Amino acid sequence: MTKANNLRETENLQEHLQRVVYLLHEHRLAASLAHAQAPASDREFEEEWLDKQNLAELQKLLDKLHPADIAHILEAMPLEDRLLIWDLVNAERDGEILLEVSDAVRETLIATMDRREMRAAAEQLDADEIADIASDFPRYILDDVFQSLPMEEREKLRSAMSYSEDSVGALMDFDVVTIREDVTLEVVLRYLRRLDELPDHTDQLFVVDREEYLKGVLPLNRLLVSDPGAQVASVMTTEMTVFHPDEKAHRAAQAFERYDLVSAPVVNAEDKLAGRVTVNAVMDFIREESESEALSLAGLQQEEDLFAPVWKSLKNRWTWLAINLVTAFIASRVIGIFEDSIEKLVALAALMPIIAGVGGNSGNQTITMIVRALALGQLDPRNARMLLSKEISLSAVNGLMWGSVVGIFAFLIYRSIPLSLVMMLAMILNLLLAATVGVLIPLTLHKFGRDPAAGSSVMITAVTDSGGFFIFLGLATIFLV
Amino acid sequence: MTKANNLRETENLQEHLQRVVYLLHEHRLAASLAHAQAPASDREFEEEWLDKQNLAELQKLLDKLHPADIAHILEAMPLEDRLLIWDLVNAERDGEILLEVSDAVRETLIATMDRREMRAAAEQLDADEIADIASDFPRYILDDVFQSLPMEEREKLRSAMSYSEDSVGALMDFDVVTIREDVTLEVVLRYLRRLDELPDHTDQLFVVDREEYLKGVLPLNRLLVSDPGAQVASVMTTEMTVFHPDEKAHRAAQAFERYDLVSAPVVNAEDKLAGRVTVNAVMDFIREESESEALSLAGLQQEEDLFAPVWKSLKNRWTWLAINLVTAFIASRVIGIFEDSIEKLVALAALMPIIAGVGGNSGNQTITMIVRALALGQLDPRNARMLLSKEISLSAVNGLMWGSVVGIFAFLIYRSIPLSLVMMLAMILNLLLAATVGVLIPLTLHKFGRDPAAGSSVMITAVTDSGGFFIFLGLATIFLV
Repeated sequence: MTKANNLRETENLQEHLQRVVYLLHEHRLAASLAHAQAPASDREFEEEWLDKQNLAELQKLLDKLHPADIAHILEAMPLEDRLLIWDLVNAERDGEILLEVSDAVRETLIATMDRREMRAAAEQLDADEIADIASDFPRYILDDVFQSLPMEEREKLRSAMSYSEDSVGALMDFDVVTIREDVTLEVVLRYLRRLDELPDHTDQLFVVDREEYLKGVLPLNRLLVSDPGAQVASVMTTEMTVFHPDEKAHRAAQAFERYDLVSAPVVNAEDKLAGRVTVNAVMDFIREESESEALSLAGLQQEEDLFAPVWKSLKNRWTWLAINLVTAFIASRVIGIFEDSIEKLVALAALMPIIAGVGGNSGNQTITMIVRALALGQLDPRNARMLLSKEISLSAVNGLMWGSVVGIFAFLIYRSIPLSLVMMLAMILNLLLAATVGVLIPLTLHKFGRDPAAGSSVMITAVTDSGGFFIFLGLATIFLV
Repeated sequence: MTKANNLRETENLQEHLQRVVYLLHEHRLAASLAHAQAPASDREFEEEWLDKQNLAELQKLLDKLHPADIAHILEAMPLEDRLLIWDLVNAERDGEILLEVSDAVRETLIATMDRREMRAAAEQLDADEIADIASDFPRYILDDVFQSLPMEEREKLRSAMSYSEDSVGALMDFDVVTIREDVTLEVVLRYLRRLDELPDHTDQLFVVDREEYLKGVLPLNRLLVSDPGAQVASVMTTEMTVFHPDEKAHRAAQAFERYDLVSAPVVNAEDKLAGRVTVNAVMDFIREESESEALSLAGLQQEEDLFAPVWKSLKNRWTWLAINLVTAFIASRVIGIFEDSIEKLVALAALMPIIAGVGGNSGNQTITMIVRALALGQLDPRNARMLLSKEISLSAVNGLMWGSVVGIFAFLIYRSIPLSLVMMLAMILNLLLAATVGVLIPLTLHKFGRDPAAGSSVMITAVTDSGGFFIFLGLATIFLV
């Protein structure tokens, strides 16, 4: 993004963020100086004056920023600075900004707002937007807002709030421009000119009949290149992708990606036009989906405010740590079984983490491949068998290769050929175990309708740890001790 | 996606995939039956006839599918089936389909094509599309294609191929509709009507002067609602997001998400219009970015063809396994230092993986948070210090909590209070280590211009393994042995 020629300079977010930080810093400095010089003085007066200038400049800067950019800045600020900036933001933009910030940060902002402010913020939004953030508002605010809406909007809000978060209904908005099929394009053009503006992301008009049945769509591109005398019915297309509100949002996202859509109609069970989905809602959904996958892989329950208080972060992270601890206890008890062997041959203690570690890494590679194929819908029972045998051959080759390497490593340090052979064999067996379980865990989770990504990584590591220790120490007990 | 009313049934991809698999299966069955009954017979004739029917139906199905859907089906097929389907696809669509498949699968398809076919496929594409897949074609094909292009297209192809893969230039296409600022909207509308169609994702027209300098943009939405007698100059907007071809694609993607863009102009160093970026290219980029992050976290170098031969998968996976092995060797040698202590107190061997494991898990949580904040540009040096101290407090609390749990666990099994206290202390110290290194690794990688995600996870695990063993066994040697 850059300034082009004689054009308005487009936003350079990083610079704005730095400027905000600088102004805040100056403000704090002035405040602390004023505080230090308790007796009033010219100096203090000057500081105060400078500080007012800083805040005024900050406010001016905020006023000209896009709500998404203000949201970004709020997220990057520690709580104290964040609330100071939130106070400076023009109250008329509160609603838009609340819509853009992450859930965790929204909570911190709403916590500082009183009933009147919250109500005002909600009233700046469309029904579908209110529904998106409704769960963060106290119940009584929603009742207030609901009462203040006109009948039609109430109905929309009610329906928007009734859809589950991962459904098309949750992505849907109500900004549709509808036309009839029995008029000419000329009439459509004149109708549009009577509007002040078209909703964002209007790339097509929806053709409906008197009962709101969807008959087709008229892409603006066709409207613009066609003869104005032509009838809508002859120019519109009926080859379109149509969604239902209760379909999975995930499927809509895939359709948008595959067919390069900008908007798509949503129809209810009676095929009446209920709303539309636009590409910006889909893009946000895709981003959130991949975020939450990355977080759940790392054992975080949800997006975390960077500057959340310690106890909140603790709450977000403890579940997986606890699960991890349980699997570690199990692995520890597996080792416990073989304490006699370790006492006799202490080298086993030093070598066993190698078997477990490489097994875990290899298993995670397998699991990532399978989870990805499942997400794309590219796995069926026939494929699955082929994949399992591929992963098993792969791990056999890997086992021979890395098994030899660890065997040599063990020999160089402990000068024992039997020990080296046990190392090698254990590596092969643990990699075979990793491949088998790496294919079966996500397939099983998927079969039972669970998300194959969540927890897969913890489970495979648990299996390759305990399994690896058992295989290695077991073989050592049989052949070496 | 669904059938609406009297509309054409929109694609139901999963069903189509199943139908393709079924038809292929029938085809194979017929082929094997024909083979089994060596002497010609009526039966064989019938089989052959049936088989021809199957293939014809398959071809018909493929012809009506969107190229992105065919790409999906090809990716989900084992190599043999994939090539059979690739043969059945109408050759005129080869180019579009090659554009849609993953890199790994494209390789397998191109490997079966001869010079003429490759050339024909490339010639179906636009210059920017050829550039996207150019690296998969042999050099001589590109020379062929280059020779066959008109002068202007050659220039475009040359420029499209000159941009690095992660730049705005790589996302750019040349499908721009330009107008002059000194004409009326009426003239613009008449000009558009002379075109057969507008390029996909045309949500705005680009206003340029005689020298191709970009003066502004005219959104179709404004064109449609404004008075046709108005001048372009008075209706166009100059408040727009403009990109340069050599900017990072990542920044363009963030701008598209923040400002909900559908298309944006790209200007060269002299502020002349060079092309545009559209939301579908951005969406593909975002998807690829998050894919490759997920893959690199799991230690896969790139997207892998599900049905890649074993040696190819091996190549894709061995690097991280090798790195993992080296860190495992180091951890093993750390344990080796304390073999005497373990010999005297074998419980240490069973307990040490707990300290290492929980440390690794906690460190990965920290690293994920930091990597995310870095990707969003929400970390500056001032924040970083605050975050470090937050993560350290968090890990101190975690250490006390989980340290007590493992201490109790150790006591229940080994009935030794000193051992329990050493466990607890080691847990606290290793979690502190995990938090510190978990913040510092991504920040350091970022500082030196490296991708903070790649390898972070392997590094933190290496530190918490070796570090955890050293801390626990070291404390045990001092206090217990």
